[in-house]
Amino acid sequence: MQYPIRIPFFAATPSRHPLMQPLPISRYPVPALADLPADIRARIAEVQEKAGFVPNVFVTLAHRPDEFRAFFAYHDALMLREGGLSKAEREMIVVATSGANDCLYCIVAHGAILRVYAKDPLVADQVAVNYRKADITPRQKAMLAFALKIALRSQEVGDDDFAALHAHGFSDEDVWDIGAIAAFFALSNRMANLIAMRPNPEFFLLGRVPKAK
Amino acid sequence: MQYPIRIPFFAATPSRHPLMQPLPISRYPVPALADLPADIRARIAEVQEKAGFVPNVFVTLAHRPDEFRAFFAYHDALMLREGGLSKAEREMIVVATSGANDCLYCIVAHGAILRVYAKDPLVADQVAVNYRKADITPRQKAMLAFALKIALRSQEVGDDDFAALHAHGFSDEDVWDIGAIAAFFALSNRMANLIAMRPNPEFFLLGRVPKAK
Amino acid sequence: MQYPIRIPFFAATPSRHPLMQPLPISRYPVPALADLPADIRARIAEVQEKAGFVPNVFVTLAHRPDEFRAFFAYHDALMLREGGLSKAEREMIVVATSGANDCLYCIVAHGAILRVYAKDPLVADQVAVNYRKADITPRQKAMLAFALKIALRSQEVGDDDFAALHAHGFSDEDVWDIGAIAAFFALSNRMANLIAMRPNPEFFLLGRVPKAK
Amino acid sequence: MQYPIRIPFFAATPSRHPLMQPLPISRYPVPALADLPADIRARIAEVQEKAGFVPNVFVTLAHRPDEFRAFFAYHDALMLREGGLSKAEREMIVVATSGANDCLYCIVAHGAILRVYAKDPLVADQVAVNYRKADITPRQKAMLAFALKIALRSQEVGDDDFAALHAHGFSDEDVWDIGAIAAFFALSNRMANLIAMRPNPEFFLLGRVPKAK
Amino acid sequence: MQYPIRIPFFAATPSRHPLMQPLPISRYPVPALADLPADIRARIAEVQEKAGFVPNVFVTLAHRPDEFRAFFAYHDALMLREGGLSKAEREMIVVATSGANDCLYCIVAHGAILRVYAKDPLVADQVAVNYRKADITPRQKAMLAFALKIALRSQEVGDDDFAALHAHGFSDEDVWDIGAIAAFFALSNRMANLIAMRPNPEFFLLGRVPKAK
Amino acid sequence: MQYPIRIPFFAATPSRHPLMQPLPISRYPVPALADLPADIRARIAEVQEKAGFVPNVFVTLAHRPDEFRAFFAYHDALMLREGGLSKAEREMIVVATSGANDCLYCIVAHGAILRVYAKDPLVADQVAVNYRKADITPRQKAMLAFALKIALRSQEVGDDDFAALHAHGFSDEDVWDIGAIAAFFALSNRMANLIAMRPNPEFFLLGRVPKAK
Repeated sequence: MQYPIRIPFFAATPSRHPLMQPLPISRYPVPALADLPADIRARIAEVQEKAGFVPNVFVTLAHRPDEFRAFFAYHDALMLREGGLSKAEREMIVVATSGANDCLYCIVAHGAILRVYAKDPLVADQVAVNYRKADITPRQKAMLAFALKIALRSQEVGDDDFAALHAHGFSDEDVWDIGAIAAFFALSNRMANLIAMRPNPEFFLLGRVPKAK
Repeated sequence: MQYPIRIPFFAATPSRHPLMQPLPISRYPVPALADLPADIRARIAEVQEKAGFVPNVFVTLAHRPDEFRAFFAYHDALMLREGGLSKAEREMIVVATSGANDCLYCIVAHGAILRVYAKDPLVADQVAVNYRKADITPRQKAMLAFALKIALRSQEVGDDDFAALHAHGFSDEDVWDIGAIAAFFALSNRMANLIAMRPNPEFFLLGRVPKAK
Repeated sequence: MQYPIRIPFFAATPSRHPLMQPLPISRYPVPALADLPADIRARIAEVQEKAGFVPNVFVTLAHRPDEFRAFFAYHDALMLREGGLSKAEREMIVVATSGANDCLYCIVAHGAILRVYAKDPLVADQVAVNYRKADITPRQKAMLAFALKIALRSQEVGDDDFAALHAHGFSDEDVWDIGAIAAFFALSNRMANLIAMRPNPEFFLLGRVPKAK
Repeated sequence: MQYPIRIPFFAATPSRHPLMQPLPISRYPVPALADLPADIRARIAEVQEKAGFVPNVFVTLAHRPDEFRAFFAYHDALMLREGGLSKAEREMIVVATSGANDCLYCIVAHGAILRVYAKDPLVADQVAVNYRKADITPRQKAMLAFALKIALRSQEVGDDDFAALHAHGFSDEDVWDIGAIAAFFALSNRMANLIAMRPNPEFFLLGRVPKAK
Repeated sequence: MQYPIRIPFFAATPSRHPLMQPLPISRYPVPALADLPADIRARIAEVQEKAGFVPNVFVTLAHRPDEFRAFFAYHDALMLREGGLSKAEREMIVVATSGANDCLYCIVAHGAILRVYAKDPLVADQVAVNYRKADITPRQKAMLAFALKIALRSQEVGDDDFAALHAHGFSDEDVWDIGAIAAFFALSNRMANLIAMRPNPEFFLLGRVPKAK
Repeated sequence: MQYPIRIPFFAATPSRHPLMQPLPISRYPVPALADLPADIRARIAEVQEKAGFVPNVFVTLAHRPDEFRAFFAYHDALMLREGGLSKAEREMIVVATSGANDCLYCIVAHGAILRVYAKDPLVADQVAVNYRKADITPRQKAMLAFALKIALRSQEVGDDDFAALHAHGFSDEDVWDIGAIAAFFALSNRMANLIAMRPNPEFFLLGRVPKAK
């Protein structure tokens, strides 16, 4: 059993450095799908079915099944939650804070998801680089300003920050969502940087061109 | 069912500001134990049995049961894992990186646990402030230098960092442990700062005096 | 006389915010082509001929013809120069330092040019986020480490930096090229941030898919 | 004549590293009390009488008698002065700014003094880590915000800072006190870091338990 | 043809290190005037005529004639432009941002020019170190605050910054001037740091004493 | 009894802003000489005799006699001490660290003293801006690198720093001198910034021209 999509794409990539192998997708061993526990295999099969390929975060973190399970349980609790934030807005938080943490995997992978959810080919690069210049609403800018404060100087958070978000119509539960997503990707970015997790080539193009193409 | 230990301690505390209420333990509602799902109630009962009180992280994060479950599953996967790091060393990582993130709850609570595991009343304050001046081994200093790099500038991690840790006898799996604990507390510190989680008064003294007290 | 390509693309972009106008391409007035001096008109016609559209940097900086002329004369002196650096390497310097300066226009526009020169759809995002994780040679990483030092802490440059680059085979003239490109885009990034220069939508996709499209 | 309390405590400390000697209390020679000038001997005797032990700052700085005299004259002029700040508030400034400078000796020693003056076992850790989360008054938070500005970016101090403190009832002389204490401990923290001054073990527990113990 | 003024001055300087040669004025070869293209020779002759000596920036950058031409064209477009800023104010921007970038050449050379234009022997040192403490108007302080934002964190520039400058009577074109001068000297400071450009000794005294001397 | 030199000089200064009063020399009241205690009057008389004018640090800090006495006792203990550092080297430490702290008074006043001691009109500006580019020996550069580490990140000081200084022939006592001077001016810079201490105009020119003037 393989991850058939990952390799061919690279082979087709015109390479500047013909003798250079593409970097591995992780510093750590990547388990064969067959060797993984059934629940993790099922989760991976599900995402492959849906996305058409297996994002590298699944196979690289599967090196440690218990941490894998906790990671995705946490991820789903935050990203699939109903609430005042749209799916695209949740991904904006991921992309903006991953930009602040220079996390290549998360910017590229979640940038792709953001483009798809927002149906906007430009927004992911805008938000990753500088949310102030992005085509988003003032409410979304306030959301990202707070997310970046959690990412970069959470010790300074205070009542004023909550008041500023309330003024844009965010509830306290929305603020928890914003802060908790930023906090979860503080973890996620550091794991990706630790293991040198490599984004799948598929992500770079996803959501940039009409699907039908 | 109550958390009987928390309140009385405060009442007995000589207060500089007689009219000032102690701050709440969270910006968010703290659920009554009776209202919590059975598995979370069981987990809280277990820690209360063992510690003699309920650390505030349990009752404050219980506000969101799904996130609570993922949080503690992740915590346990990293902190209870067998491997090349002792329990005290894992707590050192928590205390040092929480110091870098100015997280009051984690410094105080995990500082207490570190004192207990290390049977050393001084090490927690040393590590929280400046691991370079702590009574720890050169190997432990290398471990904490790497943990702080993950905490503060994980984008700069490279082969040299792995080599430096290997030179101290750490395996690649040990390096994952160090990095993943630092990453998990990047999340944990930010959640505590987000909700203004307050450390239980019990922690401040724990491990500072002989247990026979 | 118009810039016919810029507008239609936007109109076709599925928009998250139907009532929201796309942001203007500059905070400052954008001159009509007909109002520009002949030499600037010629330069713009030339780039439109070659690229198929007019990059916004040309029309936005044309607001001040004298500065426009000096800007592009400087740009050409550095970017079209023969020497030890390939065209793709010069663009890598632009993309990496623009990433450090959070300059949306330069990352997007020069990222596109880098993809085209390098015939590599992935390298621009890699270099913009974290050159340490990019599929580039150790020599190129040394080049970008120095470029970022010029961008961020040029006061610390010393003999050791020159020696490190010499060890990778760079001549003193190559070092001037690296440093001067980083210095020129220190200017360029700041101008783009000052006027909120907006990247043309065309750039986002350029070099990501085979040209035959 | 000896410093009888310092050594025994350590001997009684359960040590994680049985073969490891406790670190010395200074990188520099510590003079024997008998070799010191009479005025310094008297000062040390006085503090030992009062505290029950000799804080290491006295014996380590005594290596240079002239600097010792100036140091404690300055210290006393600021910390024993009558004025708008209570003794506990003066110590809060020391603890907060020493936290910002990662000075182990000053955090531990002055944290102990703060607990004693404030009759509050929790406040020192709170203020050392993050004064925003401490159980102190808004006036005290404004005081510490200014003290930290002096500690970290005194070049930015301006009329607005004075106005903000006046609004909390501080006089200009109080502002001098706040700023001068922060400035003096900028010196003190750097001296302690320079010589690796080690806090006496007695300080770690002082003010955490009722005195009658 | 020589630069007769530069050398003798040094020879007359009382030297702390008699065996130490003065550092060269550039890491790169300095072309002989006779070897330079006519237009550059003319430009240098002109400045020598006016200033009485040849500032090192002219002879060191002449190492690359094309870049020299673009550099001075850009410089003149910004610094000689008519508009809402006086010549002295333009030089204040240079001095303040060069101070932030620790550029010795630009602080010393443009500090001298600032003293001459402002007819004020003190203002250059004030502005180079801390514009907040300088004898300048509130309008000039707002100008320099913005220039420093462009120099240090141009990605954060937004509408509020423009509004603050408008409130001091600056037009949008004035704001472009301020920002563009800060941007140009972001380039200039980095070039000077790259090549270790050395300020002419003449600059250190210029404008400090009455000209008649 | 007056400070006759200070005022007239200003009156003679050509002023850019005719209606603007020179800023006061301190935010705090400056005591009349007659109102000061005899020992402080004597100290001020002595410096006036020697320098020909009264540096503002004396009259501004005299606002608090006890702190004045401790300040100058400390200053003299460090700056007049015999040892491995020359007087000029001690002033270099002051100027370099005051540059890092943006302290106008100390850069200008001690820059003047450095020029006089070093008999070098250029060295003070060089050291204040960037010691790496100054005409000083490698040993002096190592000294200033350490002084700046004490000024900016003293918590990171370790054995390696001592070894590096020993390699340049500095004894442990010399290292104390370097570190203690940097520490004392950490205090001094902050006091000057707190009270907005203004350098005397005389300092700006001192040591720049032959004394015979």
